[in-house]
Amino acid sequence: MEENKMERVKSLIRDIPDFPQKGILFRDLTTALKDGQALHEIGETLRDMYKDLGVTKVVGIEARGFIGASILAYELNAGFVPLRKPGKLPAITINKTYAKEYGTDTIEIHRDAIDENDIVVIHDDLLATGGTMAAAYELVKSLNPKKVYINFVVELSVLNGRAAFPADAEITSLITY
Amino acid sequence: MEENKMERVKSLIRDIPDFPQKGILFRDLTTALKDGQALHEIGETLRDMYKDLGVTKVVGIEARGFIGASILAYELNAGFVPLRKPGKLPAITINKTYAKEYGTDTIEIHRDAIDENDIVVIHDDLLATGGTMAAAYELVKSLNPKKVYINFVVELSVLNGRAAFPADAEITSLITY
Repeated sequence: MEENKMERVKSLIRDIPDFPQKGILFRDLTTALKDGQALHEIGETLRDMYKDLGVTKVVGIEARGFIGASILAYELNAGFVPLRKPGKLPAITINKTYAKEYGTDTIEIHRDAIDENDIVVIHDDLLATGGTMAAAYELVKSLNPKKVYINFVVELSVLNGRAAFPADAEITSLITY
Repeated sequence: MEENKMERVKSLIRDIPDFPQKGILFRDLTTALKDGQALHEIGETLRDMYKDLGVTKVVGIEARGFIGASILAYELNAGFVPLRKPGKLPAITINKTYAKEYGTDTIEIHRDAIDENDIVVIHDDLLATGGTMAAAYELVKSLNPKKVYINFVVELSVLNGRAAFPADAEITSLITY
């Protein structure tokens, strides 16, 4: 699937040691996103993966997930839905709190953002341990759409983030480390 | 300029009284963005405004500015550059602190995100008093690109945010209240 294009995009990703904390090798996508050709290839590849599935909404996880999710929604003529940190969305929300390495985090979505007629892709830039996306998946599922897909630009396979999801979750990623 | 399309998008924007605080009428774009046709019309209108200007980078202001900026960058075959809250960008940054109604705020950009060959659009979803965008404009200008344009989806003209910018700043918006 578009292997060569994604190899070029991968070559543009910058490795930053010890960010955000010592011992973490951060995969910095900004050096790929600022390349117009690479950004376009990410968008085209996402579109080709989801174009025949009847997708009606693409959910982006704040903040970096908004980038690919917006482009994918645009390419599919689908709507864009933000999944945000608490207190940012102005209308009636539902939320989910989940465990992180230290403490907990909460994500929110507007209750009227998705309904039972929707076919949804939830997108984020990077799959690490999967905690945020697993909470997002449960949250979106609770709104009873017809179908929910999960997508990442980058997957850090060594962290085995897929183990955070139910066995029937349909997960794709464009670039794997 | 695409008046009819933008009238339809405007009709989908939801008004939320007293958010985020008493006395503020919040213009909630999420009800427009979740409409696939409206999202597409926003993207097409942005593209038509900037397609003949040689734009090489589109800067999005975290977090809601990422949405339109990503789509505009994609449509123009330009790169996308995030302008973020402090501590989020992993490589060498420059930053600017600016006054808000209560206290101050700081925004950051990677120092290598823009260079002297770039023609830049900085995009955010909404122009209110203009403080964040004025700081973004100065920050991007300090990297010496050839040209910097400013764009918003929505402009709250009653707040006269344009007064926050130098007289020669080139500012556009799609929808005005």
